[in-house]
Amino acid sequence: MNQNEATAQKDGVKTAHTAPAEDKIPAGELNRIKNVIAIMSGKGGVGKSTITGLLAVSLQREGYKVGILDADITGPSIPRMFGVKNRPESIGFGLMPPESSSGIRIMSLNLLLDNEDDPVIWRGPLIANAVKQFWTDVIWGDLDFLLIDLPPGTGDAPLTVMQSLPVDALVIVSSPQDLVMMVVKKAINMTRMMGVPVLGLVENYSYLICPKCGEKINIFGESRGKEAAEQVQIPYLGSLPVDHRLTELCDSGSIEMYDSDGIKGMGEWVKDIERLKKK
Amino acid sequence: MNQNEATAQKDGVKTAHTAPAEDKIPAGELNRIKNVIAIMSGKGGVGKSTITGLLAVSLQREGYKVGILDADITGPSIPRMFGVKNRPESIGFGLMPPESSSGIRIMSLNLLLDNEDDPVIWRGPLIANAVKQFWTDVIWGDLDFLLIDLPPGTGDAPLTVMQSLPVDALVIVSSPQDLVMMVVKKAINMTRMMGVPVLGLVENYSYLICPKCGEKINIFGESRGKEAAEQVQIPYLGSLPVDHRLTELCDSGSIEMYDSDGIKGMGEWVKDIERLKKK
Repeated sequence: MNQNEATAQKDGVKTAHTAPAEDKIPAGELNRIKNVIAIMSGKGGVGKSTITGLLAVSLQREGYKVGILDADITGPSIPRMFGVKNRPESIGFGLMPPESSSGIRIMSLNLLLDNEDDPVIWRGPLIANAVKQFWTDVIWGDLDFLLIDLPPGTGDAPLTVMQSLPVDALVIVSSPQDLVMMVVKKAINMTRMMGVPVLGLVENYSYLICPKCGEKINIFGESRGKEAAEQVQIPYLGSLPVDHRLTELCDSGSIEMYDSDGIKGMGEWVKDIERLKKK
Repeated sequence: MNQNEATAQKDGVKTAHTAPAEDKIPAGELNRIKNVIAIMSGKGGVGKSTITGLLAVSLQREGYKVGILDADITGPSIPRMFGVKNRPESIGFGLMPPESSSGIRIMSLNLLLDNEDDPVIWRGPLIANAVKQFWTDVIWGDLDFLLIDLPPGTGDAPLTVMQSLPVDALVIVSSPQDLVMMVVKKAINMTRMMGVPVLGLVENYSYLICPKCGEKINIFGESRGKEAAEQVQIPYLGSLPVDHRLTELCDSGSIEMYDSDGIKGMGEWVKDIERLKKK
């Protein structure tokens, strides 16, 4: 591309927020969903899916009815984490999302594949359609919270979720690297352009406790979640360490067995949602 | 979507490899590129860009002329890692990629933005076009190796690179989590469907040495790179630990200052490329 074309494309980006937003798609008739929260990072591998899973577990333990819409079409981790393998059942009106052992409803493209490691080699429009269909054609029923696990980047899936689904608020996930934070800032700037409110920033992989000597190790550098949140002017929700036990539970499909003080307060993260909705 | 539609979409995936591949786009007239290697994971955040960067540094130190095409359009990390900020210069025929301090040529969408944290909110077709233009409209000149840093997933950018660019081989990056390996297997299966040969698997974040007591900590679980590579029948290239010094150098744009025994052998990873090309 020449400089002009490059600039033209770049300017296209800047005007993205002035483009008329697609109308939000209403929920299916059988669905009564009180709150829709998307979990986003922009950067991959910061533990977005793990945090989505833990937030779901935490809200479920507080007595709320929770569902997870896995919008990471080409790299879905949610079913594996919850040990859910059942194929969604088609009952005429739509697809019934399978439930985890504690009753969290889950919809993910991996549940529609014969083998979980089959690749989904799709271009953007197909990806966007799948995300929309997970909203319109899935019988979520009554839910207090539907959590949407977004893929990395600011491409088709996040754009479709923010444009077409009635997202009430977003949780942003980062890790303590400047380089990660740069990409996360892109995501935060995107939410501003799209006009979706942000509940706050969570810092993952903040530190690790050495199992031998108890030393607190800043694996990816000094924690700076609080400072980063202030910089981008969003609330700081808290930080999570690297916990080998959690990794093992996620690998073995038992995230719901995780019992740590660290996640007790997670339900608090979304307490601001009523206030944000009134805005 | 109903079950049939879901299956239809799924079957669409399976036949992706039988669809006629787009013709490979020839290199620009001013470009003489001997080897094109893409670095892929499928999963985000496993350090794909860091490994792309280290491989480039390693090959450059061996005397090769190296370029990096950053195909992660919405989450580019390469320019920051190398401390490259210059805007690519337009010289009529195309864009001149800026060079790092050691002379590695770099093209990335972030170099075309006014601010590095401006989000690029693009749907698939625009992303695919940018990737193609980084091949056709950039004056790479004479290169021994062009490394392509792919974004996570198996969507538009990886598909465009494998369909339209003359990629000689891929390096696959993973980390020691079952859940990560599941997504990485999708990427490996995609390379098979697309008929692009794989040089091998690199395991990143294999372990961490406690700075206080010297304990070797398996942060994300027991290293199983070798076993995983055997399972998917590709060569095992080696593993890299979490190194706080490397993180710092990447954050400060000084990856070229990294001097570790760990990367000395990295040039070896690509030695098989001539054999793969003859296939």
